[in-house]
Amino acid sequence: MVQCSKCTSDAVTFIRYSGNHLCASHFKEFVERRVKKELRSQVDLDVVKEIAVAVSGGKDSCVALSIINDIIGSRKDVNIRCITVDEGIAGYRPESIEKVRVLCNSLDIEHVVVSFKDVIGVDMDEIADLIGQRTPCAYCGVFRRRCMNKAAREMGAQALATGHNLDDTSQAVLMNFTRGDVERLARMGPHIRAQPGLIPRIAPLRQIPEKEVYLYAILQDIDFVDAKCPYWEAALRNEYRDIIDNIESRTPGSRHSIVASYDALRPLLREKFPQSVLRICECGEPAPTGKCMSCTMIREISNRKSIEKYP
Amino acid sequence: MVQCSKCTSDAVTFIRYSGNHLCASHFKEFVERRVKKELRSQVDLDVVKEIAVAVSGGKDSCVALSIINDIIGSRKDVNIRCITVDEGIAGYRPESIEKVRVLCNSLDIEHVVVSFKDVIGVDMDEIADLIGQRTPCAYCGVFRRRCMNKAAREMGAQALATGHNLDDTSQAVLMNFTRGDVERLARMGPHIRAQPGLIPRIAPLRQIPEKEVYLYAILQDIDFVDAKCPYWEAALRNEYRDIIDNIESRTPGSRHSIVASYDALRPLLREKFPQSVLRICECGEPAPTGKCMSCTMIREISNRKSIEKYP
Repeated sequence: MVQCSKCTSDAVTFIRYSGNHLCASHFKEFVERRVKKELRSQVDLDVVKEIAVAVSGGKDSCVALSIINDIIGSRKDVNIRCITVDEGIAGYRPESIEKVRVLCNSLDIEHVVVSFKDVIGVDMDEIADLIGQRTPCAYCGVFRRRCMNKAAREMGAQALATGHNLDDTSQAVLMNFTRGDVERLARMGPHIRAQPGLIPRIAPLRQIPEKEVYLYAILQDIDFVDAKCPYWEAALRNEYRDIIDNIESRTPGSRHSIVASYDALRPLLREKFPQSVLRICECGEPAPTGKCMSCTMIREISNRKSIEKYP
Repeated sequence: MVQCSKCTSDAVTFIRYSGNHLCASHFKEFVERRVKKELRSQVDLDVVKEIAVAVSGGKDSCVALSIINDIIGSRKDVNIRCITVDEGIAGYRPESIEKVRVLCNSLDIEHVVVSFKDVIGVDMDEIADLIGQRTPCAYCGVFRRRCMNKAAREMGAQALATGHNLDDTSQAVLMNFTRGDVERLARMGPHIRAQPGLIPRIAPLRQIPEKEVYLYAILQDIDFVDAKCPYWEAALRNEYRDIIDNIESRTPGSRHSIVASYDALRPLLREKFPQSVLRICECGEPAPTGKCMSCTMIREISNRKSIEKYP
């Protein structure tokens, strides 16, 4: 057994980009220290008193909730609540909602479930049937963001935390950069400025590699759902997963460097793309044109539904 | 035979990112139009009257010289000269110098050869022997830039054109971004502002994919050297070649998008990293600290030489 680089205990993992072998206890400390640093750099807890955490039941969001609760759960002046979006995916979502319910119970955190059926009027299984060849993920992403933002706003949250890890973050940065989508780069979280109706998103795990989140969940006995969404497929995002894995395996630390490059550019991007003044869509969600993408997609789906019904 | 998308002639190539089949004549026009646009956006020919073109004898720099000559060779008020750096690599460089000499003769362009031996005091074969395990490319790049800048400055050039194509450019952008080297991104060419002693570098082929440069050279009967440098090896740059090829093959147009992202960020980067005031090194070349990298490397090599001689 290899020894921990910090103490005499047995190491449970090797952190390739830092060259350290770590025991369970030093590994947990290593993860928690960085999450704490990120959280404090992303939210000002003298101002933010209501935090919503979006938890799907997967390892990332479960770990995010658990660590955020460790860091600020004992503060009397800050309230943490949990939001789970129920997209309506049979055989996949019900189990994970139950896991989140159990986790919230154990942490004594209020759990709110917001469903596509209630907010959008249709669930994902129905949408997937209607859109044919198109990837359901594009719709799901837009609707999920709407549900999360609506629920967070209605509970008075001043920040909405998600479980995005370092792999997710570096993939998104590289994808937007490679697609020439500089404006989308500028709009990525974590958000520092609040926009009317839009709850700033934060990502406390954005410096933690996916594998470390996984190991942390196992070591902390956090019960999560490991199943893949049935609609997961060869989306563009999965290509960037391969690319990033490839770069990281050749040059350990590259994921961190990509995010560091992005962080160096963020202040410049914010100047170049100042926040547009948002108008409120008829659904209550803010959007630059006053007509949100979610409502546009719902109308498109409704049209398909009528076509289906009356061919 | 597939027909050209623009006329009734047979196509010689398929441009995947635009979906066009092109005949020889429309392909050449397609390349030349973009090079002309780049050249005009990079240099103001009302101001720049002396252009040096660095030509190694490879396809890229030979094509750059040929097209630059086509575009501005007939202007009486602008003078084009050619610089070839002789690194001193036996079995590789002599043949390419001869090719450049023939090309320059045919275009009636003055050809200046500047050698490592004269400027640095040692040639690459000697350096490669001395540095052992280290990659010779790092030294060669620094010394080549010094030789090119010195020769261009001494001939009074106001711009130094290189043959960097779209593949080179997108690889360099992605490499610097992925390594977190935002300052190096900011310093990349094409340069718009002149610094005392430093000739602004321009890259008229930066929007032309490597394969198109190759085909253009063949179709125009430009005689170039196709051999690889004997020191070419698994350098970091070659990894990024694989990565970019992979991204481009999955999503045609990605190389262009990467350069477009970079171009959108360039003005912001220039503001963040304003040009430092350069001091002149004892060798005559400008450097931020007044001690240039080339002289630092020469001293390192000289030390190794003494060690070799007196073990």
